[in-house]
Amino acid sequence: MNLIVDVGNTYVKFAVYNDADLIYKLSFKLNEFKKQYKILKKDFPKLKKAIISSVGHLAMEQLELIGNDLNTIELTSDLKFPFKNDYQTPTTLGVDRIALVCASVYQFPDKNVLIIDAGTCITYDFVTKENHYLGGAISPGLRLRYIALNNLTANLPLLETKLPHNVIGDSTESSIHSGVVYGAIKEIDGVIDQYREDNSDLTVILTGGDSKFLSNQLKNTIFAKSNFLLDGLNFILEYNSK
Amino acid sequence: MNLIVDVGNTYVKFAVYNDADLIYKLSFKLNEFKKQYKILKKDFPKLKKAIISSVGHLAMEQLELIGNDLNTIELTSDLKFPFKNDYQTPTTLGVDRIALVCASVYQFPDKNVLIIDAGTCITYDFVTKENHYLGGAISPGLRLRYIALNNLTANLPLLETKLPHNVIGDSTESSIHSGVVYGAIKEIDGVIDQYREDNSDLTVILTGGDSKFLSNQLKNTIFAKSNFLLDGLNFILEYNSK
Repeated sequence: MNLIVDVGNTYVKFAVYNDADLIYKLSFKLNEFKKQYKILKKDFPKLKKAIISSVGHLAMEQLELIGNDLNTIELTSDLKFPFKNDYQTPTTLGVDRIALVCASVYQFPDKNVLIIDAGTCITYDFVTKENHYLGGAISPGLRLRYIALNNLTANLPLLETKLPHNVIGDSTESSIHSGVVYGAIKEIDGVIDQYREDNSDLTVILTGGDSKFLSNQLKNTIFAKSNFLLDGLNFILEYNSK
Repeated sequence: MNLIVDVGNTYVKFAVYNDADLIYKLSFKLNEFKKQYKILKKDFPKLKKAIISSVGHLAMEQLELIGNDLNTIELTSDLKFPFKNDYQTPTTLGVDRIALVCASVYQFPDKNVLIIDAGTCITYDFVTKENHYLGGAISPGLRLRYIALNNLTANLPLLETKLPHNVIGDSTESSIHSGVVYGAIKEIDGVIDQYREDNSDLTVILTGGDSKFLSNQLKNTIFAKSNFLLDGLNFILEYNSK
């Protein structure tokens, strides 16, 4: 059994895989790390290997907590990966984006794949059917857009994420919902259209915390895969354990 | 001669109109207000009337500085406007958006007009050919997106606004440029397409600080009008002085 630890900008995720099958997952705030790990160890005594992926700040203490128990690897750009990386600055390629690309190569070999991860940021990553990773884009996620409108202007309120009834907002609140939510939807659809224009045979994956909220709104056909990043991390763990 | 004072989230603008013609404009930081006004008064002794529009924080002292000299009105939702306002919360409609709608009614009567103001925020405002203002949307502007990516994540750098060579960024920097700049372009084009679908005869105005940067990149045909908001304020001043 494998433990996947994904430390994002806001939350930590634990996921347990039995071979290629996700059998458990949990999301919590960073300060609960020790407590949640103790509970997990009791519930899953058969855990043998672990992989830790962190775009945020994980303390040495927390790394050692797992490293002392399990055969642990930390995801860095130095590991073996099943794709050719055309990124000019591979050491600064976010580890979450590496994991998404691995999931794509594993689950959609021989396809041109655009992976869209709608979380804190919206990341776009493109892998050719020859398993070349070419790069992509990073734009602010839905929450970031709401927070930026409130934090960085004089008069706009902070709102909870909500799909408005209409593209035309007829109040400050519905104008913000339209600008953030429909804005992101139009951005994503427009980017997909652009990639489709350049690549006739394109598979699009949508994942990340906002993927369920967004997937029904897109005009393009996409695969919604809520565990794509975790699947990729599990694959990297197996690939580097051989 | 009219003085237009536009206090935005970041900068103050002075504009001088001779009837409907803009003959001078200047942009500066809020703390230079007193100094810049003294210089302006010397250069344009024929100034008679003024209008002040503020979405930011203008001190009473600064208001009085102009009010003691010139026949001054402050732009609020209580003034007379040449359009029917269908906004549910007219008192919270940003005064800059009111001014844009007035410019539209004055310069494009009998047209369905979508006004896009790409500044600190990107605002969308829709006026029907019957001069009904229906509302619109507010999303983060280019700088806000760059700042949000840096401020609200652990590892992303703060970059200067730049059009990337390619939609596929092959470094962290070019990925951010693509996500912010192409993201906003795809959003704007997608929103225009949506309005065109719903309104066969649509005129699109692009204005605001980023309008020059963005206008060449859009696939839709738009009118780039860099002084649209100032034109609207001058029109409101005349309309309310009669």
